[in-house]
Amino acid sequence: MRIVLDAMGSDDNPVPDVEGAVLAAREYGDTIILVGDQAKIRVELTKYDTQGLSLEVVHAAQVVTMTDKPSQVGRGKPESSMHIGMNLVKNGEGDAFVTAGNTGAALSIAILHTMKRIRGIHRPALSALLYIRGESVILTDMGANADCKPEWLAQFGMMGSIYAERALKKPNPRVGLLSNGEEEGKGSQLVQSAAELLPATGVNFIGNVEPKEVLTGGVDVAVMDGFSGNVFLKTMEAFGSVLFDMIREELYADLRSKVGGLLARPAFHRVYKQIDPFETGGVPLLGVDGVVIIGHGRSNAVAIKNAIRQARNAVSGQIVGAIREGLN
Amino acid sequence: MRIVLDAMGSDDNPVPDVEGAVLAAREYGDTIILVGDQAKIRVELTKYDTQGLSLEVVHAAQVVTMTDKPSQVGRGKPESSMHIGMNLVKNGEGDAFVTAGNTGAALSIAILHTMKRIRGIHRPALSALLYIRGESVILTDMGANADCKPEWLAQFGMMGSIYAERALKKPNPRVGLLSNGEEEGKGSQLVQSAAELLPATGVNFIGNVEPKEVLTGGVDVAVMDGFSGNVFLKTMEAFGSVLFDMIREELYADLRSKVGGLLARPAFHRVYKQIDPFETGGVPLLGVDGVVIIGHGRSNAVAIKNAIRQARNAVSGQIVGAIREGLN
Repeated sequence: MRIVLDAMGSDDNPVPDVEGAVLAAREYGDTIILVGDQAKIRVELTKYDTQGLSLEVVHAAQVVTMTDKPSQVGRGKPESSMHIGMNLVKNGEGDAFVTAGNTGAALSIAILHTMKRIRGIHRPALSALLYIRGESVILTDMGANADCKPEWLAQFGMMGSIYAERALKKPNPRVGLLSNGEEEGKGSQLVQSAAELLPATGVNFIGNVEPKEVLTGGVDVAVMDGFSGNVFLKTMEAFGSVLFDMIREELYADLRSKVGGLLARPAFHRVYKQIDPFETGGVPLLGVDGVVIIGHGRSNAVAIKNAIRQARNAVSGQIVGAIREGLN
Repeated sequence: MRIVLDAMGSDDNPVPDVEGAVLAAREYGDTIILVGDQAKIRVELTKYDTQGLSLEVVHAAQVVTMTDKPSQVGRGKPESSMHIGMNLVKNGEGDAFVTAGNTGAALSIAILHTMKRIRGIHRPALSALLYIRGESVILTDMGANADCKPEWLAQFGMMGSIYAERALKKPNPRVGLLSNGEEEGKGSQLVQSAAELLPATGVNFIGNVEPKEVLTGGVDVAVMDGFSGNVFLKTMEAFGSVLFDMIREELYADLRSKVGGLLARPAFHRVYKQIDPFETGGVPLLGVDGVVIIGHGRSNAVAIKNAIRQARNAVSGQIVGAIREGLN
């Protein structure tokens, strides 16, 4: 397999990106094609023992930054590592593309300038992969589409189900629709209409769900519009961070708590490990004509390696072909 | 002041409801009018020293349950404690109504059958009062209106601002609009249109905000449609509960963690106290022609007392009159 990696993606690029590529090439035996500033990438590569690994470098003269406007970067930076990397996949020189860079830019370059959407897909969707207590849940859409139509949500469910089954290896994944209550008559008009369309997509639709079920293993795929999805994900992140800040602060407030906190430190690490966003590494952009995995800007080398693992699972699960067939 | 309390509201009614009324009458010196099953209320009252307290009982033959359908309970149970209690306020025999009962039923009975909306208000909104690290934030709407129009959101902002200023005593409250990103071009069509209307309402509109700012004291009022608001609140609750479950589990996993957890217990209690939902007691239904405070079904006596405190703050802040004036 040939995975194309945006070496200029992460906030500390190309350091964790290159190290992650080395780790992945070693662990999975795949060819990793590093796209970006050739000189910088080669300097990083000298730090590792790459003997016997299949690592290639493709130069890209431009870099997409976190402040670049997604709507302008496609035309404005045609030589970016994202642009060149995605074209490699489009032209069959790579099987998947992985980046830890600007999400909006990656969406825009993939959908409008390089891979384009799969014929018949209304709107590609950005997913999130929650990893909580050993269970992974795929949430889609996470913000690519703030305003959605019911038939788009139905397709998100179909694509999420295919990803859960083929890349996450979950048999007959349960698909739920996020709503404000499960009772009769609850849900926005969008949700009510989408609930009528989802059964016909052939997925295992279990009905409307609330955040609690999404977070406690009640579903494998949670379908939502990009606005609600973004609110969901960011509320979770922000509240988790507020809680951990408070706990940290109170554990330093007096000696007794400090000693308790020190003793309990391994327990806290185990908690953190169970919700570690780097464990999943990256999230798929579903509905584009090619595999695209987007990682967090703060990714470290292990997160990059895990994002590459997501990409290879998506390729070997033949996600794109399955979505195309799911449309018929 | 005369506060009307639904004595049949909480899950354990009338036990915590009556005790909360006694606590409130003692602490605030107000008259509390207990509405519900007269015999049961009187039995509860004998448990306390009510000498010198101003407690009245009004009989109601019916009780709204948590499984009653909001759309049917108004006509189906005209003699419920909610219905009779709200009518007391409507007829000027009480200054505010407090219930820990079925939220949907309370909305329906208030808006459609008793108090009705303030003339000029498009849609009343249910608020949430987050109490995090000593700061309170008012979120509105929390689920009364799953589908909203921009002008409704603008009114939610106006009403929330009045509540924050007059009941929560926050000078010049900062009003933010929940969005999926603060950058230019972000936000659903609804959010983009509401952002244009909010400045004209005269509130201190600080622009679009993300969940992080809502949870870390960046705003005093966060405006959102009822669907997103419900997702926000329930995601927060569910994720907090998942995190605390994981922490509890890991702290019992081995002896070292157990000892650490025991020593840190007061620290955890301090954390919990900082996000205690019972501290605020209840949340206002804004836009109806009268003060209505809705508490959690699981309310204990202190939560009921605190809900009554919310009610008296809303009455003394002349919320209803101020909202009426805010419309001009």
